[in-house]
Amino acid sequence: MGFSQRHLLGIEPLRPADIDCILDLAERYVDLNRAASKHGEALAGLTQINMFFEASTRTQASFELAGKRLGADVMNMAMQASSLKKGETLIDTALTLNAMHPDLLVVRHPQSGAVDLLAQKVNCAVLNAGDGRHEHPTQALLDALTIRRAKGRLHRLNIAICGDIAHSRVARSNILLLGKMENRVRLVGPPTLMPAGISEFGVEVYEDMEAGLRDVDVVMMLRLQKERMDGGFIPSEREYYHRFGLNSAKLAAAKADAIVMHPGPMNRGVEIDGEIADDINRSVIQEQVEMGVAVRMAAMDLLAQGLRREAMG
Amino acid sequence: MGFSQRHLLGIEPLRPADIDCILDLAERYVDLNRAASKHGEALAGLTQINMFFEASTRTQASFELAGKRLGADVMNMAMQASSLKKGETLIDTALTLNAMHPDLLVVRHPQSGAVDLLAQKVNCAVLNAGDGRHEHPTQALLDALTIRRAKGRLHRLNIAICGDIAHSRVARSNILLLGKMENRVRLVGPPTLMPAGISEFGVEVYEDMEAGLRDVDVVMMLRLQKERMDGGFIPSEREYYHRFGLNSAKLAAAKADAIVMHPGPMNRGVEIDGEIADDINRSVIQEQVEMGVAVRMAAMDLLAQGLRREAMG
Amino acid sequence: MGFSQRHLLGIEPLRPADIDCILDLAERYVDLNRAASKHGEALAGLTQINMFFEASTRTQASFELAGKRLGADVMNMAMQASSLKKGETLIDTALTLNAMHPDLLVVRHPQSGAVDLLAQKVNCAVLNAGDGRHEHPTQALLDALTIRRAKGRLHRLNIAICGDIAHSRVARSNILLLGKMENRVRLVGPPTLMPAGISEFGVEVYEDMEAGLRDVDVVMMLRLQKERMDGGFIPSEREYYHRFGLNSAKLAAAKADAIVMHPGPMNRGVEIDGEIADDINRSVIQEQVEMGVAVRMAAMDLLAQGLRREAMG
Repeated sequence: MGFSQRHLLGIEPLRPADIDCILDLAERYVDLNRAASKHGEALAGLTQINMFFEASTRTQASFELAGKRLGADVMNMAMQASSLKKGETLIDTALTLNAMHPDLLVVRHPQSGAVDLLAQKVNCAVLNAGDGRHEHPTQALLDALTIRRAKGRLHRLNIAICGDIAHSRVARSNILLLGKMENRVRLVGPPTLMPAGISEFGVEVYEDMEAGLRDVDVVMMLRLQKERMDGGFIPSEREYYHRFGLNSAKLAAAKADAIVMHPGPMNRGVEIDGEIADDINRSVIQEQVEMGVAVRMAAMDLLAQGLRREAMG
Repeated sequence: MGFSQRHLLGIEPLRPADIDCILDLAERYVDLNRAASKHGEALAGLTQINMFFEASTRTQASFELAGKRLGADVMNMAMQASSLKKGETLIDTALTLNAMHPDLLVVRHPQSGAVDLLAQKVNCAVLNAGDGRHEHPTQALLDALTIRRAKGRLHRLNIAICGDIAHSRVARSNILLLGKMENRVRLVGPPTLMPAGISEFGVEVYEDMEAGLRDVDVVMMLRLQKERMDGGFIPSEREYYHRFGLNSAKLAAAKADAIVMHPGPMNRGVEIDGEIADDINRSVIQEQVEMGVAVRMAAMDLLAQGLRREAMG
Repeated sequence: MGFSQRHLLGIEPLRPADIDCILDLAERYVDLNRAASKHGEALAGLTQINMFFEASTRTQASFELAGKRLGADVMNMAMQASSLKKGETLIDTALTLNAMHPDLLVVRHPQSGAVDLLAQKVNCAVLNAGDGRHEHPTQALLDALTIRRAKGRLHRLNIAICGDIAHSRVARSNILLLGKMENRVRLVGPPTLMPAGISEFGVEVYEDMEAGLRDVDVVMMLRLQKERMDGGFIPSEREYYHRFGLNSAKLAAAKADAIVMHPGPMNRGVEIDGEIADDINRSVIQEQVEMGVAVRMAAMDLLAQGLRREAMG
C-alpha cells in the first residue's frame, strides 16, 4: 500500500500505512543527508513555497533545506499575520500564491484550522508546518522516526508526554500518531495545562512526574508555551521546574534505557535539566532535528509523486 | 524585429514591437508554469539580484520565482530606504552590487527616477519593479497579456482605469502601454485623485463611474494608495466605495463581456465589491498574478539574450 | 604545500602558504565572475548555511553569491543575538544546525570568540564572517588580493591603516595578514582609537596623518564604528574629518601611485573625501568588493576539498 494523501494537513487523516511509508523513505534520506554529497533530484522542476505566518527559525530551516537538497526551486515568504484580516484575506493570499503555480506549499499559521482552509482553495499539495493548537504533523513524524530508530519498533511502547499539553500542537499530533501505531501514551502535567476532553484520546493522565514516568520507554518533554497562555494560568518557572522539570531523580523512575526527547527550542532549567539534555546516553534531542530534515524530504517526495501521477492522468 | 532594450526601466522607451516580443515569449512561459515540471535553463549561469527598497511581498515573489524557474542564481536583498542618504549613497549601493557582477538587477524604490539613475551606474540589465509614482512596467505588461488572452487582441479596445490615478505608477505604465497599442483609455475617478496635466496623455477623463464604464471592454480598478497620500486629500472609505467602488450596478454599464482587473492586493469593500472580485465570469484578477510570473520570465530571458549577444561581440 | 585548515576562523592560524593558496584560487574565480556565464560546480551537493547574528547586507550577500555560484544549496538564517541567552544557548543553536548536516557554516557574531567556540561544537567547516573586535579573515584576504593585483606583489610594501583601529576587526585581521606576508604596517589615528598593547604587533603608530602616510604604497581607511563605541570617546565627525579624514592634501604625502582602500560602507565626508573615493586612478574600493566574492568562493572551495578528503578516509 502506497501513500494515499494529497496533502499533509495532520496526523489525523493518515493511515498507519501512510506513516510507515513516510518513515521508510525518510530512512533513505537520513543516509543521503549524512553523505559527503547530499543533493538529489526528487523535487527537480517543482516549486516549493514556505509561507510562515508565525516566525520559526528551525522548522522553516528544516523545510527549506529539505526542499533545496531535493532540487526544488524554494521560496520563503515571511507573512505577517497581524497585517492580514481574518478569513477572506488569508484566502486572497492563498489564491494569489496559487496563481503562481507552486507544487508544494508549506504553511505555518497561528490559527487552528487555517491550513486546512487554505488547502481547500489551492491546487498544489499543502504541508502543515503547525497551525495554532491543532496539528504539527512533521514534528510527530520526526519524533516517530527517532523513537523507531532508538527502540527498534514503533508499537507497544510506553511513552510519557510531559508538561504543557494544553497549548501544544506537538502533543496533539504525537498523541494521534502514537495511538494509531498502538502505543500506550501517558500525559503528565498540571491539570491547568491539560486540555479539556483529554480522556477521549485513550490516554492515561498523571499529575505526578514519578508516577507518570514509571517504567516508560520514552520521555517526551514539551516546551512551556508561555507565548500562547493568553490571560490564563502562567506557572512560575521555578515552581514548574520543581514539580515538572525533568531531572535525573525523576528520570530514574523510567526504564533504564528510556530515551529523552524535546522538540526544541529548550528552556533549560525550566522543563528540562541541562545535564540530561546533553547526556548522549539518554537524550536524542539532536537526532530529532536530524530526523526532521529527512522526514520532510520524504513527505515532500511522496506528495510530489502523487502530483505527478495526477498530472499523468 | 527583435527586442531592442538593454534595460526594462519603463513602458515609455518600448516600441510596440518590444511589447509584442515580451508578450509572445510570455505565452510560452505560461505553458511552462502550468506543466508538471516547471524549470528551464534560459537564465542558467546568470545572477539575478532583487533589491527592494520598498517592501512588496507579491512583486518580489513573482520576480524571484521567475528567476529561479529559469535557472538563475537569485539573491534577495532587503534594503531600508530610510537608512540610506539620498542620491550619492544609493549610487554607492549600486556600485557595490555592480562589483559583485550581477547580470540582472530588479529594483523597487520609493523615489521616481531612482531606478533610471541606478541603471546608468551599473553594467548589468536593470528591471524596474516600481519607482515612486513613475513606472511599473512589468505590471502593465502582465495586464496587457491578461487582456490579450481574454479579448483575443490588444488594440481598439475601450478600457477604463478607475480610482486613485494620481498616486499610481500602475496607472501611468498602463496608460502608456495601452496608448502605444492603440486602445482608447478612459480615466475614472475624483478630480482630487487625477494627476495634473493628464490631458497630454490622450485619454478621456470621467468623474462618474457609470458614464466612464459605459460600453467598455475592460474595467481596471486601482488600489487606493493611502500610504502615498502624504498630507493630501484622503477620502473616507465608505464615501469612496459609494461613488467609485466597483459593484454590479456600476459594472452593468460596461459591455456584457467586460472583464474586471485589479493589480492587488485588494481592499475589498473599498475599491471593489468582494463578489465581483470572486466572479469567475468577470474577474481575471488571479490570471493577472499568473501572467505576472510569465511576463517577468520573458522580460528577463530577453534581457539576458541581449547580454549574451553583447558579450559575444 | 596545499591548504592546511579545517576552518577559516581568523588570519592568526594561517600559514603564508595557506594565504597564497586562497589568493591563487581566487584569481581564477575573478575570471569566472567576469564571464558571461558564471556558475560552477565546486560546491555542488554541499549545503552552506549563513548564520548572521549581526546584520550585514554586503558581507552576507558576498558569501551568498559565492556559494550559489559554486552550486551549493545555500540557506540564510537571520539570528537575533538579543533573543539568545549567552554561551549555552549559542551552543544549542549550533548543535541544532549541526544536526541538519551543513557542510559550510558562515557565522557573524557580535562577541569576540563566539565563532571559535561554535566551531568546536560542529562537524562542518566554519567560516568566520566577523566576530566582535576579533577577526574578519575574508575581509583581510580580499584586501590582500586587491593589493597584490594593484601592486604586483604582497610583500615589502608600506601600508598605512588609518582611523578607528580600536574597534576594528578588519584592522586586526589585516595587521596579522600583512605582517605574515612581510610588509611594513603603520597605524594612523587618534590615541583614543588605538587598541591597548598595539606595540606587540610589530607596527609603527602615528597620530599625524601626513607623517603616517609619508611614502606608503597603500592607504587603508577604516569605517568609524560608532555603533561599537559604547560609552567611550565619540569624536565629532567634523573634527575627525579635519584631522583624520582622507583628502587630497593628506594623500599627497603617500607615493604617487599609492592606492586607496576602504572596507565599506563609507561615511563620505567623515573618514574619506567623496572625490578620492570615486577617483578611479587611486581608489580600489569597488575592486575590493569584487575580490570579496572571489576570495569567499576560493575559501569555501578549499574547505570543501578538505571535507571531501576527510570523508574519503
